[in-house]
Amino acid sequence: MADEVKLYEDGRSPYVSRVKLALHLKGVKYESVVEDLSNKSADLLKYNPVYKKVPVLVHNGNPISESLVIIEYIDNVWKGVPILPCDPYEKADARFWAKFIADTCNPAIYEVHRSYGNEQAVLEANEKLQILENKLRVSGQKFFGGDNINLVDIAAVYIAYWPEIVEEAKGIKFFTRDKFPKVSEWADNFLNCQVVQETLPPRAQLLAYFKKRHEARNKA
Amino acid sequence: MADEVKLYEDGRSPYVSRVKLALHLKGVKYESVVEDLSNKSADLLKYNPVYKKVPVLVHNGNPISESLVIIEYIDNVWKGVPILPCDPYEKADARFWAKFIADTCNPAIYEVHRSYGNEQAVLEANEKLQILENKLRVSGQKFFGGDNINLVDIAAVYIAYWPEIVEEAKGIKFFTRDKFPKVSEWADNFLNCQVVQETLPPRAQLLAYFKKRHEARNKA
Repeated sequence: MADEVKLYEDGRSPYVSRVKLALHLKGVKYESVVEDLSNKSADLLKYNPVYKKVPVLVHNGNPISESLVIIEYIDNVWKGVPILPCDPYEKADARFWAKFIADTCNPAIYEVHRSYGNEQAVLEANEKLQILENKLRVSGQKFFGGDNINLVDIAAVYIAYWPEIVEEAKGIKFFTRDKFPKVSEWADNFLNCQVVQETLPPRAQLLAYFKKRHEARNKA
Repeated sequence: MADEVKLYEDGRSPYVSRVKLALHLKGVKYESVVEDLSNKSADLLKYNPVYKKVPVLVHNGNPISESLVIIEYIDNVWKGVPILPCDPYEKADARFWAKFIADTCNPAIYEVHRSYGNEQAVLEANEKLQILENKLRVSGQKFFGGDNINLVDIAAVYIAYWPEIVEEAKGIKFFTRDKFPKVSEWADNFLNCQVVQETLPPRAQLLAYFKKRHEARNKA
């Protein structure tokens, strides 16, 4: 039986882009089901009753939620380019950094944007990003994964692409190139990969979305 | 070369108990290094520079932080009783639930305790715990892992043991047996396992610690 792979997505979430990137790296063919998050489908609610969120990957009828859990599943099931290292210690190290980015860096950047650059939020986000900056400086490598992108790079897709667009929409400037030159260089290298470009929402579409949200907030 | 395994711990953290439980399940011999968290050792700061927290497992000189990352490492490296299922879908499912407990249930219960039973916090914690209650009711199994404890049970060690002690120390009652009968039954089964008993901090010691914190807060 051929694999049936469906991805429930929304066309603009960095969590969805993480999963798409893993699927494209593995060369997995999938059907994209775009959800209207203001009117979620019965399927989405059935497949992810706990969080009721995208992304959900449904593989031969079996649903999986949570982007990093889905990526580990994809890496387990489909051969080809490995997404996690094979060595147990390197694997643990990649999981540590993916979790650090997901649980600590991304929320710190969201908070800068949500608060329109609140001083304390900026201090905290700077501190977290400086840790990534130092990591890239010490390793001297092109990607967090070394010569090739791995779980950590995929986890960091938000940092590479979203902040600059959100900041343009909101008219703020937090994430500057001179503050984090190594992270900026990494983002350039990452966004230059064809597989990354294939899996990102179009810039104009994201910008229009965040501008609309910004305008709605200003009217409220 | 024999394995050198050191666990940096504090003698009372549920995150440490998770890791000890995984080590005991696998029969791994380790040296316990008890940290004074008000005066952290140079080793702890060197081994976990990002979070500066216990637990840290150091295996043949290589440090690993974050309890769930450490448990996956232990399961990868040492054979014997499996902690995660082998089947990729069951593995993803276990990771999903361990993450739900770690990221959603535990913080909801902490908030009830921190706020001394704030109404909104209680509502939210009830909602999260009801999801676990339903999961145990539907599965009809003894443990989240089935007949034996697995990653999900280990992730939930806090729920089995800590809340009742914290509530005794603070003189509040949130976590009642009649509200969550299946979760309570699971906790009894879990706490009856010898391997779990071996790895928990003594009740009297935890109670004294939380009473002291409660009294310090009341004086402040």
